[in-house]
Amino acid sequence: MWRELKPLGRAAESGGYRRYAWTAADTDCRAWFRAQAESRGLAYETDRNGNQWAWLGDPLAGDAVVTGSHLDSVPDGGAFDGPLGVVSAFAALDELRGRGARFGKPLALTNFGDEEGARFGLACVGSRLAAGQLTPDRAHALRDGDGVTLPQAMEAAGHDPSAIGADPERLARIGAFVELHVEQGRALDLSGDPVGIASAIWPHGRWRFDFHGEANHAGTTRLADRRDPMLSYAETVLAARREAELAGALATFGKVSVEPNGVNAIPSLVRGWLDSRAADQPALDTVVAGIERAARESADRAGIDLRVVRESFSPVVEFQHALRDELGRILGAPPVLGTGAGHDAGILSASVPTAMLFVRNPTGVSHSPAESATEDDCVAGILALADVLEGLACS
Amino acid sequence: MWRELKPLGRAAESGGYRRYAWTAADTDCRAWFRAQAESRGLAYETDRNGNQWAWLGDPLAGDAVVTGSHLDSVPDGGAFDGPLGVVSAFAALDELRGRGARFGKPLALTNFGDEEGARFGLACVGSRLAAGQLTPDRAHALRDGDGVTLPQAMEAAGHDPSAIGADPERLARIGAFVELHVEQGRALDLSGDPVGIASAIWPHGRWRFDFHGEANHAGTTRLADRRDPMLSYAETVLAARREAELAGALATFGKVSVEPNGVNAIPSLVRGWLDSRAADQPALDTVVAGIERAARESADRAGIDLRVVRESFSPVVEFQHALRDELGRILGAPPVLGTGAGHDAGILSASVPTAMLFVRNPTGVSHSPAESATEDDCVAGILALADVLEGLACS
Repeated sequence: MWRELKPLGRAAESGGYRRYAWTAADTDCRAWFRAQAESRGLAYETDRNGNQWAWLGDPLAGDAVVTGSHLDSVPDGGAFDGPLGVVSAFAALDELRGRGARFGKPLALTNFGDEEGARFGLACVGSRLAAGQLTPDRAHALRDGDGVTLPQAMEAAGHDPSAIGADPERLARIGAFVELHVEQGRALDLSGDPVGIASAIWPHGRWRFDFHGEANHAGTTRLADRRDPMLSYAETVLAARREAELAGALATFGKVSVEPNGVNAIPSLVRGWLDSRAADQPALDTVVAGIERAARESADRAGIDLRVVRESFSPVVEFQHALRDELGRILGAPPVLGTGAGHDAGILSASVPTAMLFVRNPTGVSHSPAESATEDDCVAGILALADVLEGLACS
Repeated sequence: MWRELKPLGRAAESGGYRRYAWTAADTDCRAWFRAQAESRGLAYETDRNGNQWAWLGDPLAGDAVVTGSHLDSVPDGGAFDGPLGVVSAFAALDELRGRGARFGKPLALTNFGDEEGARFGLACVGSRLAAGQLTPDRAHALRDGDGVTLPQAMEAAGHDPSAIGADPERLARIGAFVELHVEQGRALDLSGDPVGIASAIWPHGRWRFDFHGEANHAGTTRLADRRDPMLSYAETVLAARREAELAGALATFGKVSVEPNGVNAIPSLVRGWLDSRAADQPALDTVVAGIERAARESADRAGIDLRVVRESFSPVVEFQHALRDELGRILGAPPVLGTGAGHDAGILSASVPTAMLFVRNPTGVSHSPAESATEDDCVAGILALADVLEGLACS
């Protein structure tokens, strides 16, 4: 199963994956999903928002147990973030059929569309649309870097975009959603466990810092006459690290754009994007306020105009305690851990009882070709997922 | 004259100029030059390297007096850097004809090609080729951001690239080259003079700092597990400012490129370009060594692999003292000032007696749409250039 999926959308030069929503690489992955479903005799369907479903039992019966994840990737992403949850869903079903399990409830395997948001800049588009957390109007306005809109991209990939939008009847027929995911961190490596259960997704957001200075000749302008926004940007990058350390939180400037970006030109504009996350809302507020204060002080000293825009924000998501406790009972109390990463499970948790399983990542590296999980741990994850599905659907 | 040149290659959104070598905007500027030459009855020619010449008198007689500058621009450049010297050349000729001047030597007006290097990354390509400071082999290998080579670009603009290369016979027929240029700094503004004479061009260079870290998920990777190259880049930007202040020199990071440049990705690579200049070589060496030391210390602390590459370097250029003194005598001892900017005059000074005139810039701003000179100062520059040409060619 892995063997067929592995080469799809992989960049030769980096070894990383570039599976962006509604591209040819994504279409190949979706075809793989459908083939896996049909080869197992499951009833395949694509919902109005382009999410894929493979059903065992009656989709309309209600109280369904659903598992899955996503197949798209970040730029030069790893092999596990997303696909591990989809592959494990099929493998867990195979395991349960091998055990002769008899299902009392409908079971569905899913691939949610455009989880990473690498192409249109918004994460979890497929689940957000289904859950009514993204309106069709806003979705129609999403554009990729080449100016292609989301509906145009869907249409080009063979999906009719006219019916996108909230799908409450579909979500109402789900009794539990469980997403298995490679851990993006080292908590399980440090505790020595192959599998863990999610407690919550940290609140997180993205802020754009626009430092407006004055373009000038780098070879002739006296230091005293400069209004160089690169200096304030640099001080803000260092302040972000400092504030995150103080609060035990995360803060990262991973994206920057400079105008005019010439070697011999003092920039007129430096734009930096801050990604920040913390275990709770007060800690996150403290970190972001501290970074913004440092940025303003630096900008004021250097004659820079600073504008800070919050581009996105996701409040804390606590997964349902009853379902989490049931998974803990089924699996014999594995570690329970929080995570800084967003997931479709986080979006769906507002509408459906939702839980997540994490599989150990020996280096913690994610969103990179170096992302990994051992074969033993992947098998442990599949068996844990099979146990959970059996406990939820066969009881 | 200005009125026809003004709209060529101007970007509506920024108000700045984008006159890159061998583009349509450059072709328009070159056609303007030729029309100006022919309307004055001058003999027009393009040399093998694409530099434009307009001759009064016999080009082959030798001991010619030559004046001019360039018409190309940096991205979103101002109206004066380059064009002021070309427009003033034609205006000074008009002034001298009005005075009834009789020329004892041939006079040539020039537009050197690709001075700014905005398209192919190397400055002063036209004068470097002519002076034998750039070999045809290296010039053939130059590529723009779209992969177009310099010969392809020349050919597309109607210039035969097969004969590019050193042109010693042409340079040997020049007795003096004088380039008028808007000042890129505030020395004349501070001294209260409309026109000054150049003493020297500071030594300057470009260094690329490659900070290699480890790509990872910004939302899940613990601070202690990160190898984030953005932090070392930020510390190096601040070190550059500090070292330049200590040495009374200039150091600027105006260009940066980040991989993968995603909001939620710790970068795998941050590349920053340092431009540094100082009044003499020891001061420049001190500044660059200090910046590199600070970068290495920061990189070592953060587990970052640092590679520093010197991409270009120009040693100090002292303009010919005899010619400089003669200009001082003609103009009544205006201020003599050094400059951090490179010029075609700096390249030609290795082969030909060369001098420069600067026209006051009230803000010092250059390489920006805000670059300026008052009408009165431009007239003062034209009259000074006319006096110099009269003194050199009519004596």
